[in-house]
Amino acid sequence: MTQNIYDTPEFFAGYSRLPRSVEGLPAAPEWPTLQSMLPDLQGRRVADLGCGFGWFCRWARDAGAAAVLGLDVSENMLARARETTGDPAIRYERADLEALALAEGAFDLVYSSLALHYIENLRGLFQQVRCGLVPGGRFVFSVEHPMYTAPGRPAWTRDPDGRLAWPVNSYAEEGTRSTDWLAKGVIKQHRTVATYANLLIATGFTIARLEEWSASADDVAAHPDWAGADERPSFLLMSAQR
Amino acid sequence: MTQNIYDTPEFFAGYSRLPRSVEGLPAAPEWPTLQSMLPDLQGRRVADLGCGFGWFCRWARDAGAAAVLGLDVSENMLARARETTGDPAIRYERADLEALALAEGAFDLVYSSLALHYIENLRGLFQQVRCGLVPGGRFVFSVEHPMYTAPGRPAWTRDPDGRLAWPVNSYAEEGTRSTDWLAKGVIKQHRTVATYANLLIATGFTIARLEEWSASADDVAAHPDWAGADERPSFLLMSAQR
Repeated sequence: MTQNIYDTPEFFAGYSRLPRSVEGLPAAPEWPTLQSMLPDLQGRRVADLGCGFGWFCRWARDAGAAAVLGLDVSENMLARARETTGDPAIRYERADLEALALAEGAFDLVYSSLALHYIENLRGLFQQVRCGLVPGGRFVFSVEHPMYTAPGRPAWTRDPDGRLAWPVNSYAEEGTRSTDWLAKGVIKQHRTVATYANLLIATGFTIARLEEWSASADDVAAHPDWAGADERPSFLLMSAQR
Repeated sequence: MTQNIYDTPEFFAGYSRLPRSVEGLPAAPEWPTLQSMLPDLQGRRVADLGCGFGWFCRWARDAGAAAVLGLDVSENMLARARETTGDPAIRYERADLEALALAEGAFDLVYSSLALHYIENLRGLFQQVRCGLVPGGRFVFSVEHPMYTAPGRPAWTRDPDGRLAWPVNSYAEEGTRSTDWLAKGVIKQHRTVATYANLLIATGFTIARLEEWSASADDVAAHPDWAGADERPSFLLMSAQR
């Protein structure tokens, strides 16, 4: 099973205080881009891999989805997600995404926000997503951008003009990275953009759109603690069709 | 018309001395990857956009292509390309890729090596390539990797462990970059990986493969002047199907 960092008290407490945890999708700066990559959800069946507090599941229902399944490995997050809705068309289940099993053709959209960079067995997960989708169904996900996850010792620097720059190394060395974010020793899986793309294609998906989300200069002016987020992409967003 | 840097004496002299100019494809480290992305050429009609000295055109004929058209903006390079072959199935023509016009359905493969990052009107070029290909035909190209072209003031740095790192900034700011390579003020067009991918999709292509070529540690050990080329990708290689 993937490291379940979300159920460690320190990480969970920190994560619970993030704007995207407190305020939901509008506080996630990449959400407008990710939203623009989604199909019309009216009457559709949706699965959310790594649903966390369930913000997207509830949004999908508001957007007309007929049924939503939220899967997460974190008991803490599922408990809070269940508390926030009495909607019988939203179901939350505990699942280890390393060994995901989706019912064949059960979904029109499989969605995942910032969860797949924790997964070691991404090939197996993509195969399960393909199996779980109807032909023509969509797989839309975000991950931390490979440029962001690559360096083993990430640290901002400045270019000869004094402008912030993000030093990239060990980009081609895929695999485990241990970083300190909200807690020490958070384990992620670094993969290249090419691997995400080619793994989708090899699994039988057609890439419909690929986005590399960076903050705008205005975003950074409004949030000084985002300094640099306009210099290199933070997130990779992909939409693929079965 | 794109800056025709190849016909300036200083640049042409420097370029002519590069291993890939003297020894051809085997001296281009990304060639094995690019070659693995090509379809079988037996009996096929091929266009090479930015053919330079014609190494690929001659290789394509050796690989069985029925006819090869090499296009380049540089008179110097075309002159030398013409000197190296008497094969009537290889034709070299001067063309400005900013205003490319290919005959409809005239090609099974359109190939381009390290030329498209000079082009401003990439959308127009992609449309022409699509028009020039038969249905099912392939478009295979390499460009300098966006991570490589992004920074306005590129310069290697070292991470806290002393390991070489490539500082990336202004990644989302697409457009002109002026760099000094073989000559001063070489103009390139920086684009993101997302833009290359989405422009292909918007033009009606299906992405078949995407590669981010980095040197291996062995490559760098064998070529000390490549230091760092194993830390971040130098080239973006794409294969798309009409």
